[in-house]
Amino acid sequence: MKIICSQSELKNNLSLVSRAVPGRPTHPILANVLLVADSEKNTVTLTGFDLSLGMRTSFAAEVEEEGSITIPAKLFNDIVSRLPEGEITVSFDYDDIDDNPLVAIASMYGKFQLRGVSADEFPELPAVEKEEALMLPVTALSEGLKGSLFAASGDEAKQILTGIHLTRNLDTLEFAATDGHRLAVVKTTDDKEVSEDGEETTDEDISISEEQNFTMTIPARALRELERILTMAKEEDNVALYVDDGQVVFELGAQNLTSRKLDGAYPNYNQLIPTSFDRTMVVERKRIIESLERVSVLLDQKNNMVKFTLDGKNDQLFLSVEANELGNAKESIVAEITGDDFEIGFNIRYLMDGLKALSSNEITFHFNGAIQPVIVTPLSGLQMKYLIMPVKL
Amino acid sequence: MKIICSQSELKNNLSLVSRAVPGRPTHPILANVLLVADSEKNTVTLTGFDLSLGMRTSFAAEVEEEGSITIPAKLFNDIVSRLPEGEITVSFDYDDIDDNPLVAIASMYGKFQLRGVSADEFPELPAVEKEEALMLPVTALSEGLKGSLFAASGDEAKQILTGIHLTRNLDTLEFAATDGHRLAVVKTTDDKEVSEDGEETTDEDISISEEQNFTMTIPARALRELERILTMAKEEDNVALYVDDGQVVFELGAQNLTSRKLDGAYPNYNQLIPTSFDRTMVVERKRIIESLERVSVLLDQKNNMVKFTLDGKNDQLFLSVEANELGNAKESIVAEITGDDFEIGFNIRYLMDGLKALSSNEITFHFNGAIQPVIVTPLSGLQMKYLIMPVKL
Repeated sequence: MKIICSQSELKNNLSLVSRAVPGRPTHPILANVLLVADSEKNTVTLTGFDLSLGMRTSFAAEVEEEGSITIPAKLFNDIVSRLPEGEITVSFDYDDIDDNPLVAIASMYGKFQLRGVSADEFPELPAVEKEEALMLPVTALSEGLKGSLFAASGDEAKQILTGIHLTRNLDTLEFAATDGHRLAVVKTTDDKEVSEDGEETTDEDISISEEQNFTMTIPARALRELERILTMAKEEDNVALYVDDGQVVFELGAQNLTSRKLDGAYPNYNQLIPTSFDRTMVVERKRIIESLERVSVLLDQKNNMVKFTLDGKNDQLFLSVEANELGNAKESIVAEITGDDFEIGFNIRYLMDGLKALSSNEITFHFNGAIQPVIVTPLSGLQMKYLIMPVKL
Repeated sequence: MKIICSQSELKNNLSLVSRAVPGRPTHPILANVLLVADSEKNTVTLTGFDLSLGMRTSFAAEVEEEGSITIPAKLFNDIVSRLPEGEITVSFDYDDIDDNPLVAIASMYGKFQLRGVSADEFPELPAVEKEEALMLPVTALSEGLKGSLFAASGDEAKQILTGIHLTRNLDTLEFAATDGHRLAVVKTTDDKEVSEDGEETTDEDISISEEQNFTMTIPARALRELERILTMAKEEDNVALYVDDGQVVFELGAQNLTSRKLDGAYPNYNQLIPTSFDRTMVVERKRIIESLERVSVLLDQKNNMVKFTLDGKNDQLFLSVEANELGNAKESIVAEITGDDFEIGFNIRYLMDGLKALSSNEITFHFNGAIQPVIVTPLSGLQMKYLIMPVKL
């Protein structure tokens, strides 16, 4: 195998797929990336895979001799990112002594040799039947992920709650995440479908049918990597989503992300969301986040509660924190309040996480009593609901 | 006490003196900053002190009521840095309950109250007799520090080696640092002296006399903070240095850094520096640093050696690293070589530290044998010598 490619192309693609390479691999081969050189198409394909998440990407290269090999991902990445811009040659030969593959990475300044492992030992990415793609606009997908990912549980023991629950219902795609303390739900609308041959189909061709609806839960870890890929996409791009029983594949241009689904029943979160409220409050999002950031200075692991005092007569929300040993803080914000005045407490971190994920300038808090779930929604734009449980005062 | 000042002034001065506040104070009061409000001068003076290093700075403020108080540095800093731009009021009163001082920090949005501690409990900065100041140009001082600080020992057990050794000899100031493995020496020239009343004196008035020479060792930690202050100074500024038996004071405008000296005899480093050499090599500094950064990818804690192979006939320096388990690397650099070809090994981290601290585009390596000390010097500019011991091949 021998390829000649540009340092920047190799660097960018390698750093992408390296994100799927596990830090502590369960099997040594998973610490490697698979490099496949195709002399017919003159392309190089790189793959990283941790048995749950797989990332694959292709780019143009001069393939002098085709072949495939796996290379230690971290070292390869560290070397390529430091090489000078310009042409890089990657090739491999078998070591004279032990007959193992030795990968050579040559630049204008010199040569590195790394111990590779035969491509035969690299596990195959699971195949997904690519019959029907759901085309998701990059903007909608980004919004859905931004509005939900933060609320997924980071605790591996919580299994299904470490994922994002996706529900396709005709032309809408709903993202939901909860860690048991709070719940975020975002509803986006998908634009169009394409058939396998890439032709766009209109509603007259194939109407979106109920049979094509689905619900599934995908690990947040995989979707965080998808979110990262989306930051490099153009706003008008679409991501193709393929779904089968055990796996999903997201495709954006030459970039491809495969993930297993999470097994198990996702909580029926819709029944947790109250539909009527005794009180509402509209505030400027940026202003309340800044206030919360300031008063949170006084918080510590023992005490993380901020108290809201609603003063409808004066159109004011008072935020206060009491930290006996350190001191106290009180700030006020202009707020549009309906309903009776009252006081309610929140875990400040959970509250801030949600407020940061909302994207509108103004947001509405929907309250019932001081110990009943609170819903925060944007005043306009995205269809998002953030449910947070209050803390007892 | 009550002051009104600008948020940005308070923030900048507070973050400066906070750097002298120890993370783990030996006495609780040292976690505080001292704030002194002077109604006559309408200034506020802030002080942080860890009993070895003291930092003090003053700025203009509207002092409605003079007084002094100490405030927990981290909290005060965290709050002030998050407050909106504009006017801030800082005042204190005594708590109704326990009669302890309660410091109020008020902005347009609200008020924080922090538990303060009486200024009486704050230790005084040691006084230094300010008879004669040595005026040091900011550029020379920065160069001296940059060229030496990196080589001081970080191991507190090495005591005197955790400092920078300063030698004043007539109109030159020499900076030296060593941790036992390498030695950096920089010689700078000071411009002028001023007498206590601020008038510049010329060589005719007071000639620089041998009696004013000194040698002393100052903790690197203090000088790192000085280096940080210098980055905010103008190039044409001068720093006044006052020295007495136990302490030194650096003054730059309203900023003042006090440090104790380190006790003990500093190694007689000049006798370690060879004066004649069998070989020299001139290389481009940036190019060799980049090569070293690349090949260092293959190094780990067990193996940190880079091998230099000098090839005078071809004007080439070869750098190579062997890492049995991972692979190997070899790069070449154009070099101007005198003397016989040979091979020599270095600890790559020690080598890079020195090359990064040198400032000229081209540098000269001065070699004797493969196990004798090597000196690296800039080809032009600053008078700096970097001594590094080779590693056995």
